[in-house]
This record gives sequence, C-alpha cells and structure tokens, in this order.
Amino acid sequence: MRTTTAWQSTGTGASLQRATIERRELRADDLAVRVDFCGVCHSDLHALNGMVGKPVAGLVPGHEFTGTVTAIGPAVTGFAPGDRVAVGTIVDSCGRCPMCAIGQENFCHERAVSTYGGVDRVDGTMTLGGYSREYVLREAFTYRLPAGLDPAAAAPLMCAGVTMWEPMRSAGVGAGTRVAVAGLGGLGHLGVKLAAALGAEVTVLSRTPGKAADARALGAADVVITTDDTQLKAAAGRFDLILDTIAAPHDFSPLIALLGFEGTLSVLGVPLEAPVRIMDLVFGRKKLTSSGVGGRKHTAELLAFAAEHDITADVERVPSAQVDEALARLAKGDVRYRFVLDLSDLD
Amino acid sequence: MRTTTAWQSTGTGASLQRATIERRELRADDLAVRVDFCGVCHSDLHALNGMVGKPVAGLVPGHEFTGTVTAIGPAVTGFAPGDRVAVGTIVDSCGRCPMCAIGQENFCHERAVSTYGGVDRVDGTMTLGGYSREYVLREAFTYRLPAGLDPAAAAPLMCAGVTMWEPMRSAGVGAGTRVAVAGLGGLGHLGVKLAAALGAEVTVLSRTPGKAADARALGAADVVITTDDTQLKAAAGRFDLILDTIAAPHDFSPLIALLGFEGTLSVLGVPLEAPVRIMDLVFGRKKLTSSGVGGRKHTAELLAFAAEHDITADVERVPSAQVDEALARLAKGDVRYRFVLDLSDLD
Repeated sequence: MRTTTAWQSTGTGASLQRATIERRELRADDLAVRVDFCGVCHSDLHALNGMVGKPVAGLVPGHEFTGTVTAIGPAVTGFAPGDRVAVGTIVDSCGRCPMCAIGQENFCHERAVSTYGGVDRVDGTMTLGGYSREYVLREAFTYRLPAGLDPAAAAPLMCAGVTMWEPMRSAGVGAGTRVAVAGLGGLGHLGVKLAAALGAEVTVLSRTPGKAADARALGAADVVITTDDTQLKAAAGRFDLILDTIAAPHDFSPLIALLGFEGTLSVLGVPLEAPVRIMDLVFGRKKLTSSGVGGRKHTAELLAFAAEHDITADVERVPSAQVDEALARLAKGDVRYRFVLDLSDLD
Repeated sequence: MRTTTAWQSTGTGASLQRATIERRELRADDLAVRVDFCGVCHSDLHALNGMVGKPVAGLVPGHEFTGTVTAIGPAVTGFAPGDRVAVGTIVDSCGRCPMCAIGQENFCHERAVSTYGGVDRVDGTMTLGGYSREYVLREAFTYRLPAGLDPAAAAPLMCAGVTMWEPMRSAGVGAGTRVAVAGLGGLGHLGVKLAAALGAEVTVLSRTPGKAADARALGAADVVITTDDTQLKAAAGRFDLILDTIAAPHDFSPLIALLGFEGTLSVLGVPLEAPVRIMDLVFGRKKLTSSGVGGRKHTAELLAFAAEHDITADVERVPSAQVDEALARLAKGDVRYRFVLDLSDLD
C-alpha cells in the first residue's frame, strides 16, 4: 500500500482532521496523481453532515480536482508522469451497460463508483476523495487538463461545471436559447458562463439584487429579482430552460411559471423531495427534470469547450489547512463562487 | 335567444335534471349544431362534484361531441347545414397570442374558452356543454367529422383522444418508440390504439390482470402488472414515454423507475398535486410532464389520422336520460371504455 496525507472526517460533522491514509498500489490501468487543487462542493457538506446517508467516520471528501501524474501502471497508454490532469465525481463504472456504452457512466446501471464514499469494484474498499495529496485511479476516468486553463480555477469544472454542462447539452442550448439560471453560487456562476459561451440569452434569477452586477459580468444579459412580483410577472413564459441550482427546499411553481411552451425546469441543486403541482405543467406542456454530474463524453467535451472559450470558475483559493473554515463559509453561502483547496501544504 | 333541451346540474353532485336552456343567436361566424352523441368524461364528474372549483348550479357538462350542422352565420365559409361535425373541449381563444399562432389554443395566454363552464369572450355568459340537443359555436373550433368514422364512437376522440394524441406527437412517438400506457380507461384505451397505429411498441401498465386480454386486443404488445414486483423489476428502464392516465392520486416513483435514459412520464390523469422525489429523475435525466387536451392543429390532425387508421373509442352508447347512471358507473370505473350519450331522446 501507498500512503498519503488527507483531510478526513471524524464522523461528527464538517470538521476534518489531518490524517495519513492508504492508497492502493497501482493496478495495470491505474495512474497516481499528485492532487494540486480540489474544489469544495456543496455535496461535501451534505456528505459530512449526513444529509445523504449516515455521516461516515473516515470520509475524505473532494470530487473535483486537478493534479499531476506521478506514476502509471503498465497498461496506461494515454498519460505519462508530469502530465497535468483533472478528475471528477466518478472513478469507475461497469463499462458494459447501455449507459456506459454511450458515455453516460454517471448513469451506469451498476452505479458508477463515486470519487469518495464509493465502493471500489475490485477490492470493495471505500473510496477516499481529493482532499488529499495523492489519488490513485483508472486511466479511463482521468482527463487531460488543457494547457490554457489555470489548474486551481479549472478544478470546479469537474463537478460544478459538468453538472451544468450536461443538461444544457442535452437540451440543445445554443444561439438564441433563452436560458435562466436560478441561484448564483458554485454551479450557477459556471452555468451563466457556459450558457453565454454557447450563445444563449442568459438571465439570472436571484432573490436579492446583491449579485446583479456579478451576474452581468459573468455573461448574463438580464437579472430577474424573484422576490419582486412585478419582475416575476413580467418574466412569465420567457424561458426555454431554467437551470435551478438552489440547494435548499423551495417551491417550483414560481419558476415553472417563467417557462415558455414546452420549457424545461432542470432541478440541479437537488432538494430531495418536493411537492409538484401537476397543473403547473399542464398549460404549455412544461417539463420537470434533473440530472447528475457528467459522463466521460460530456466531461471531455466540457474541458475542450472551456479551453476554447477560456472558461474557469471564479475561485477563492485557500491552503487546505483552512478547509474547516471554507466549509463553514460555504454553508452560509459566503463564497464567490467556489473554494478551491491548495493541497501543497500537505507535503 | 334560441332554446334547447339539456341535462343540467342542480349544484348538488353528479345528478342532472332535464331542463330548457338558452343558446345565443348565431353571430356572423357561428354555426348551430344538433348534438347527436356526447362522451361522458371523467372531468364531467370532477366538475359536477366540485373537485375543481365549486360545484356550479346550472352547469351542463359535455365537451366531446359529434353532431350535424343545422344553421350557419353569414360569415361561415367551411360548413353547410347537414354537415357532420365534431366539437371538443374548447370553443374560443384570443387568436392572437403565440400559442394561438401555433395552433395550441388549448394553452392560449388569455385562457381558451372551455366548452362548458367557460366564459364567453363576447357576452360574458357561462358556456353550457354538449349534454344538450343543440350547441352554438364559432366555425373556427368546429371540425369536420370524417365520413368513415362512426359518430357515436368518434365523439371521445375530441377529448380523451386528443389528450393522448398531443403529448404523443410532441414526444415524437413513431416506429419503435417504447410507449407504456398506465391505466386502461377512456383515455388509456385510446392511447393504446393511437400509439400502436403510430408504430410504437405499446405496453399497458395495469394493477390487475383483468384487462390484459383487452389490452392486447387494443394493440398492446405487452402487459405489465404493476402490483407484481417481479414484473415491475423486469420492466425497469424499458420505456421512452409513459402516458399516465390514472386519475386518482398515486406515487410516481414506480412509474419513473420504468423509464429509460431521458424518458418522459406524462401525467395526463392529472392528480392535482403530488410529491416528486427529484432523485428519481436524476439517474437517467428523466422528465416529468403533463399536457392539457389539444389545440386546433393536433385535433384536426388526430381526426385525419383516426379516419386513415379507422380508430374510434370502444363505447357504451346509452340514451341521454341514463346520464346519472352512466356517471355513477364511471365513478366506479365500470365502463369499457367510454359512455356516449345519445341525445336524440331530447327531441
């Protein structure tokens, strides 16, 4: 076994301790990555606080990171030590089901292996995430980081970015599509940048005017303040697609009212259960949907698109030793727009 | 004013009394129709029982009927007395909004005028439906009944039929589409016939095996008994589109589990509000939607398709004086598959 240093849960909430953890010896198609930067995702908070499943002692969060290849197994053909790479939310899948066959490993019928908190398909151990200095994974789930992208600011593309990208591509967002992004956080701000770069007419839906200037700077053509009934009414029926990144439980009806004919509300902040008034969907044959991060196809596509359009996240880069503070501030929504841990302090 | 005979609500539930009602004198673009056959729709029960809005004394239900033109206004160009016609759930709309412009008058931004219980756009009176011997309406919302279709069995095409047809057309149902129909009643049985005629591979989802033989006779290739866990599990991920015609509140999760990648659950029985587990939609990026009857474009298209493929409803034809009994039996689901009132007993 290899060992590395990580920030690990004690099972008592969003407080992590520095610990030595094991990584597996490289299998034939594995590579080892020195983790340079890892984004702090809202799901990390959920996982640590036991909001999905029980809180797990020993958990190491982190599923959007960039780093440098340090070693490769004998069957690895696409990477060499020294290569800059990026890793996202899944690190393995069955490889045989219809979803894997079309590059949607995120929907693998045998469930893809999560980058942390997952179960390794070979040895059955729990996967430990990117809040660590080294990660070992299959080549197939490792992506080349395009040269032009800043490695810290690119890390959030791997979860927040592709979470927005895949439903946009699925919905055919392009020139003239009227896209709204509800909630301007880690997901939302990347959604605005990506939708604008795809040629869409982007509107940010926000509860308060405080982020209006940011929204426009990110590429939004308009901002609708959703606590202002006059603005809401004026925007009724306006959008083809609403990317709803609001993590807290909320009423979908006011958002659905903003959709035009056959428009789609894509709920990506994933409140676990919510009442839906079917009558809201009747007039205009509107659609409610969701999505879950990205498969290999869209992830690779996103990295190429981001490089071409020079898109990365707006990040607040902190030494990894400040991870508890970053999690606490994220819980309050106090970040513009994504914390990224610099893992070099674990050496 | 013209007068005619109708079956009218006393405001105390699904019991109707024979009454004389007024019809307007023909406007320039109106025509008068002698109502020959009118289907008994589940919404009629809802309306009489006050399940949507308050029960209204004076209501005359009925919004899927066929009949014969008896008189035309001076501006009517498409019909002449003696023509066989069909009328559905809406009889007017604004004619100017984007929905009217694309033939989706059912989603008119000023709300289409319902065939009964609506408010006439000119004089503000409440519209009275097809459980009557005469109806007066605009030519624009009157459809020619194709010669080959039986007038009694064709009446349910105008509500039940187009309610199934429009979402199928919107979803692009065609050769090889894997369509399931949940609930085999007035809507469902027409859904099976229409989907099969479009070339889809149709499965009926039913709680009990009692209707399996009927389902196959109507055109279903398969039947899944949803109370049988083994059958449910075997059908997981199988369908592109589920047309859910179940009127009672029910759990969507087992149905969503039957959808494949980016499949759609179209809720057409319209339970008013239901909890949705967003997580059900995540894996496979599944969609929940609904629809509401049909606009002029799809209604005309459906009548042509029905004539071409010789599709009408399976009906139980009764003298209109038996309307109370028909409504009571419909409330128990005791009809295969649609009651149609013969209004000739009102002469």
